[in-house]
Amino acid sequence: MGQSITFHKADKLKPKPDGSKPLGFGKFFTDYMFEMDYSMEEGWHDARIVPYGPISLDPAATIFHYGQEVFEGMKAYRTEDKRILLFRPDKNMERMNQSCARLNIPEIDEQFVIKAIKQLVAIEEKWIPNEPGQSLYIRPFIIGTDPALGVHPSSTYKLLIILSPVGSYFGDSMSPVKIYVEDEYVRAVKGGVGYAKTSGNYAASLKAQTKSEELGFDQVLWLDGVEHKYIEEVGSMNIFFKIDDEVWTPALNGSILPGVTRASVIELLQHWGVTVKEKKISVNKLFKKAEKQQLKEVFGTGTAAVISPVGFLKWNDKVIKVANGKTGKLSQKLYDTLTGIQNGKIKDELHWIQEVKTDKQEGAKEKEEEKTATVE
Amino acid sequence: MGQSITFHKADKLKPKPDGSKPLGFGKFFTDYMFEMDYSMEEGWHDARIVPYGPISLDPAATIFHYGQEVFEGMKAYRTEDKRILLFRPDKNMERMNQSCARLNIPEIDEQFVIKAIKQLVAIEEKWIPNEPGQSLYIRPFIIGTDPALGVHPSSTYKLLIILSPVGSYFGDSMSPVKIYVEDEYVRAVKGGVGYAKTSGNYAASLKAQTKSEELGFDQVLWLDGVEHKYIEEVGSMNIFFKIDDEVWTPALNGSILPGVTRASVIELLQHWGVTVKEKKISVNKLFKKAEKQQLKEVFGTGTAAVISPVGFLKWNDKVIKVANGKTGKLSQKLYDTLTGIQNGKIKDELHWIQEVKTDKQEGAKEKEEEKTATVE
Repeated sequence: MGQSITFHKADKLKPKPDGSKPLGFGKFFTDYMFEMDYSMEEGWHDARIVPYGPISLDPAATIFHYGQEVFEGMKAYRTEDKRILLFRPDKNMERMNQSCARLNIPEIDEQFVIKAIKQLVAIEEKWIPNEPGQSLYIRPFIIGTDPALGVHPSSTYKLLIILSPVGSYFGDSMSPVKIYVEDEYVRAVKGGVGYAKTSGNYAASLKAQTKSEELGFDQVLWLDGVEHKYIEEVGSMNIFFKIDDEVWTPALNGSILPGVTRASVIELLQHWGVTVKEKKISVNKLFKKAEKQQLKEVFGTGTAAVISPVGFLKWNDKVIKVANGKTGKLSQKLYDTLTGIQNGKIKDELHWIQEVKTDKQEGAKEKEEEKTATVE
Repeated sequence: MGQSITFHKADKLKPKPDGSKPLGFGKFFTDYMFEMDYSMEEGWHDARIVPYGPISLDPAATIFHYGQEVFEGMKAYRTEDKRILLFRPDKNMERMNQSCARLNIPEIDEQFVIKAIKQLVAIEEKWIPNEPGQSLYIRPFIIGTDPALGVHPSSTYKLLIILSPVGSYFGDSMSPVKIYVEDEYVRAVKGGVGYAKTSGNYAASLKAQTKSEELGFDQVLWLDGVEHKYIEEVGSMNIFFKIDDEVWTPALNGSILPGVTRASVIELLQHWGVTVKEKKISVNKLFKKAEKQQLKEVFGTGTAAVISPVGFLKWNDKVIKVANGKTGKLSQKLYDTLTGIQNGKIKDELHWIQEVKTDKQEGAKEKEEEKTATVE
């Protein structure tokens, strides 16, 4: 898709959030957003960066009735030397297309959307916060917009990208969370949409999440929808267990979200020579390992939290205190390494980072290329 | 909720659809819609009937990311003597609140929303089509509107009601459909949101529905998400089987939508003295019954189609032709009776009908009441 992206300048820019107060997650939005439309005739078209503002949809639009939607979550990081980095945007776009395929949404040109993300982030570079743990959260999403009530895939869509300066998802990022094993509600099942990043999975999770908060926990540990025995994921993150010197995580099975941070943690651990096992893990087996003092650490992984250590784990009347309720060494090392790569402080040996060039840099680069061309 | 409903008159009314052409389903919308907002402070408030038109939402609104949504489907029917009837709106509103509870959406005042539906339908009475099988489809829905990306229930919502003059859902309503047993994709599982009327269930169904159309079928027959053995529902309808002189339908189990038409068919059959069994029905057992010539009829039930006879049923390489591919006697009788009650042609012995009074009638009625009051 060689289409160009038009830019509609805002009359007035918003004040930035007060830097002395916590940013929270997804509460502030920048001055601009990216928007692109799809129709059967034109495909994805009319790519544009426009002032952030309300979108106007027919009340019969597919999204309001049949939930045809996919989204992604990623972040832009500001380095100490003022460069802007993205972490594996290609993985997010690859997953977005996998989600699109499951939800009957026409596929996107992954490289074009990465280009759009980079242009938008470059325009909004002043919104990228600087404090430790902070970043600019990037939320691309696609919604079905047909104004018709028959249960059919929409024939028209909107892709939007919005940006939000964020702190770490769980407040103080490395404070261990308390989770419990949810055995009533189910997030997803094989044959469903569990592996897709689509709104319905999150709608289904709200009830259990609310219940967990009422019970004094931070998140739930989801079990499989078939036997209610095997561990799937935690809240809206993937989950890892350090068992003696190995690291275990539930194998992707169609109902687990294939997290980009999950994949990166596995690659990083393997890079370090740690044995990682992707396997079916029953909650019963996990608690037995814990009884035998073999469960050394538990942590969640996700774009929002990066690494979220788990300090307490409850299953019916059994409670495990993990790593003495503190952040384990491996969790800390993974967090430091991943955020270090993301912030440009640690060398990107695994080639995960893509840099966002700002207009000024791009201009300089283009001029240089012209010069080269002239010389030739 | 004793609140009043304000009415905002449209400057210009739309032309009605061409009566000589099929209306289809959910393609045309009337001149007005009902809208009401929810906030923590005010509860449900600002009930209003306004010109039908686009709704404007922040791109970060909950509905676009986490699918917090519930909806209902019901119809208004025009009788030969020009009265307007609703079919069991109390059942729809009861289910809407059950869906709200599952999706963490604040409950509605069922009677107030029925009142709102009646007022809206009364204003739009000229949009109720008159031909056989036609009606005015009523679509109430609620969406979460918080402009925030944390995965939490929204604190603000919008309830809308839109109206659409419709023909019968499947074109010629009583032409038997072809369905096949879907054993790859799953619609819902116990512990999930299958019993709630929420957008995510329909999003999850699109892939299998598209596959069924590509394979030359009209709908899919969903199996349970755990063992892939037991019959749940068909497409977006409940399903019934006439086995010899009994009627079987899958028992509600948490992953099946509790259809209003389903409940009505059960009550009607029982009223007629027919044995109805709500039970766990394996597809294997069903096909064995068919082999023994005991499967006499199969039909789907739903608000859109009312009764939809099934003529062909495919499971792997086995194919059943039901009732010789024609509409069975019982299916026809149920269709005639239900539509007869809905159209006011058959006596409403089970007290399912509520009448919509138009302004004129209401005026006349109120005057009469005043008179009575004066006389007293």
